[in-house]
Amino acid sequence: MSNKPMLVFQTDFTYKEGAVCAMYGVVKSVDRSLEIIDGSHELPQYDIWSASYRLYQSMEFWPTDTIFVSVVDPGVGTARRACVAKTVHGHMIVTPDNGALTHVKRTIGITEVREIDESINRLQRTKGVAIFHGRDLFGYCAARLASGIISFEEVGPVYPVEEIVELPIAEASVQGDKVCGIFEINDPNFGNLWTNIPLEMFTEAGFAYGDMLNVRVINDGKVAYEDRVLFEKSFGYAQKGDVMIYNNELMRVAMAVSMGNFTEQYHLNYGGDWQVEFTK
Amino acid sequence: MSNKPMLVFQTDFTYKEGAVCAMYGVVKSVDRSLEIIDGSHELPQYDIWSASYRLYQSMEFWPTDTIFVSVVDPGVGTARRACVAKTVHGHMIVTPDNGALTHVKRTIGITEVREIDESINRLQRTKGVAIFHGRDLFGYCAARLASGIISFEEVGPVYPVEEIVELPIAEASVQGDKVCGIFEINDPNFGNLWTNIPLEMFTEAGFAYGDMLNVRVINDGKVAYEDRVLFEKSFGYAQKGDVMIYNNELMRVAMAVSMGNFTEQYHLNYGGDWQVEFTK
Amino acid sequence: MSNKPMLVFQTDFTYKEGAVCAMYGVVKSVDRSLEIIDGSHELPQYDIWSASYRLYQSMEFWPTDTIFVSVVDPGVGTARRACVAKTVHGHMIVTPDNGALTHVKRTIGITEVREIDESINRLQRTKGVAIFHGRDLFGYCAARLASGIISFEEVGPVYPVEEIVELPIAEASVQGDKVCGIFEINDPNFGNLWTNIPLEMFTEAGFAYGDMLNVRVINDGKVAYEDRVLFEKSFGYAQKGDVMIYNNELMRVAMAVSMGNFTEQYHLNYGGDWQVEFTK
Repeated sequence: MSNKPMLVFQTDFTYKEGAVCAMYGVVKSVDRSLEIIDGSHELPQYDIWSASYRLYQSMEFWPTDTIFVSVVDPGVGTARRACVAKTVHGHMIVTPDNGALTHVKRTIGITEVREIDESINRLQRTKGVAIFHGRDLFGYCAARLASGIISFEEVGPVYPVEEIVELPIAEASVQGDKVCGIFEINDPNFGNLWTNIPLEMFTEAGFAYGDMLNVRVINDGKVAYEDRVLFEKSFGYAQKGDVMIYNNELMRVAMAVSMGNFTEQYHLNYGGDWQVEFTK
Repeated sequence: MSNKPMLVFQTDFTYKEGAVCAMYGVVKSVDRSLEIIDGSHELPQYDIWSASYRLYQSMEFWPTDTIFVSVVDPGVGTARRACVAKTVHGHMIVTPDNGALTHVKRTIGITEVREIDESINRLQRTKGVAIFHGRDLFGYCAARLASGIISFEEVGPVYPVEEIVELPIAEASVQGDKVCGIFEINDPNFGNLWTNIPLEMFTEAGFAYGDMLNVRVINDGKVAYEDRVLFEKSFGYAQKGDVMIYNNELMRVAMAVSMGNFTEQYHLNYGGDWQVEFTK
Repeated sequence: MSNKPMLVFQTDFTYKEGAVCAMYGVVKSVDRSLEIIDGSHELPQYDIWSASYRLYQSMEFWPTDTIFVSVVDPGVGTARRACVAKTVHGHMIVTPDNGALTHVKRTIGITEVREIDESINRLQRTKGVAIFHGRDLFGYCAARLASGIISFEEVGPVYPVEEIVELPIAEASVQGDKVCGIFEINDPNFGNLWTNIPLEMFTEAGFAYGDMLNVRVINDGKVAYEDRVLFEKSFGYAQKGDVMIYNNELMRVAMAVSMGNFTEQYHLNYGGDWQVEFTK
């Protein structure tokens, strides 16, 4: 087993056609010994927000020399920067600088960012192709970096961390006996919704497992959901079909239907316009 | 290439969000040299039966030191046991003891089972999280086991194999000139249905490739399907769109529509209440 | 890391059940050190054309000793040949000889093809099974080849390259100021359609990025789509929702809706009966 950094890929390409396969072939042609991990190739299409959240969700569980390659890239071929960022813990992220670094920058911290020099760190044999930087630029550059062919400094010129493109992030808050936040992301598989509210805010407000809480969800100025809901330790404690509040895997408050789909069943969604309030 | 046991994962998580990636990061943080294989992350949600069947379906094709990690876990966080079981051939399975060991226990055999000691073999940094044992318990414990950090004995206390939770399994039978069983599982991709009838029972009843057989499917006391169907060696011998009986990859009798979807086309399904009878 | 050839698999099996897992188990039981890559397990069911195109799409990006295993096999168990082909660059393909070699043969070139000798290169323990050659024949034989247990010569008897089954391929052409071709394949994820027209034909006809072109799509003798469309360098230059013509990752002309789905939105498809013409 190689001691070179692992490459964890996340894209919105899916495995339905040959794009992932071609991208991985480029990596293996740079250095056969590199280890490639599927982070996910099923991110929602063009959804830079999800790319940003998923990096934040999993990165801290990986060895600190791991290199993440994130390619959700609706602006491919335009003037948006292609970059490699380094976090405070040493992880690197190879990505278009289009907002995909938002969560990592805000919640983990980025110490340095460099623009990829396409004259050196781009696959030359596909020079005429402008639409597949996953294969031709991000995968290729990441492989060179992981392989040790280039150093971080040789990626390209450094630019100010302050210039990294950030999407707007809402902050949760405790307001008296009320805890307020938004549904920040979903679990698209099980239909759960995750708020941006850290568990500590619940503790601060005096909410504990076993409490019945009032939940109000407001979307577009209207109440989209309102009910009294039990705050439970895990899914298995709820009756099948019950709505529940729980502490998710990132220690943030989340909501689910036990063995059901909260998002679909109540026609809810996530984003800055999906406010949620909890009171006792 | 490492000589440590491989880890084969199967879950109902999908690749739509960051859960698999975080789980694999934990494994690689325990021991970078471990080899991770995707068994499947697309098992039907909460479907312990499928988890059990899929283990049985593929396990015998793997080297005997392979460790399987199966996480279909609707009872996560409750009192259900988390365990590691060892089969008669040496394979190990890390799983909630919720019925997922049913087929392996019945058709292969389990020699020993141990309850995972969470005070030792649980990731400590996520102690406050109760809902993601794939990452925090099963993946982490399996990695320690594969890496050699702990022995099988150090997983935790042994408990009687008889206490392993089993789902009810129906047995097929030959009754005179009739062979009876159930549709035990499906092939959700191609829409085929697999019975629990071993090919030998067909031989015993005198059925051979090329025979026309009467098939009757009974669900909920009513005939759900009845026809004369050819028993064929493989799909390619049937006309496109024809219903056919065949010997599946586990040497059990199955039914399909050649290049079609038997399950959907005839509104059929699998389970204990889907009886099927074959006569000449 | 092993120096043995990598195995890149593509099938229409999906990960919904245990087939891929069993197949990979066979490979790892032949030789634990072999490296397995998921090319794709989501090829459209029974679609030999897609299998052929996807091999062509990704193969040239892989090290020349890589072995591809392609299993889209509606004729499994019948008299169709099972073979291993070698390309002019040294890549090998293990596949049913059912048309899956069409694009590689025509666009890359095949130097030699051998029929797999099932008496030697077939898994013996599943002898009674006729329906799963991915596991029992192709995966097993490919593993023996990659491992060095057998040489290419020991796969089985050579047969004439001319006998390889080919699907009909249409050729694009420049006819005066008109460039004619077909929609040859799709990108099923983003809904783009890829023509068989090389970019050079556009250059030859005097078309350049920034040009407005007349596009006419004819299906079944009727005009299925007709409009003036911008030929652009990449998706990011188009307005969201605009139809655009672009140069795809294989240097062929393609069409898309920027951040939309061209195929679905205009009820289009690909195949020999989907002619497309471009004029200025």
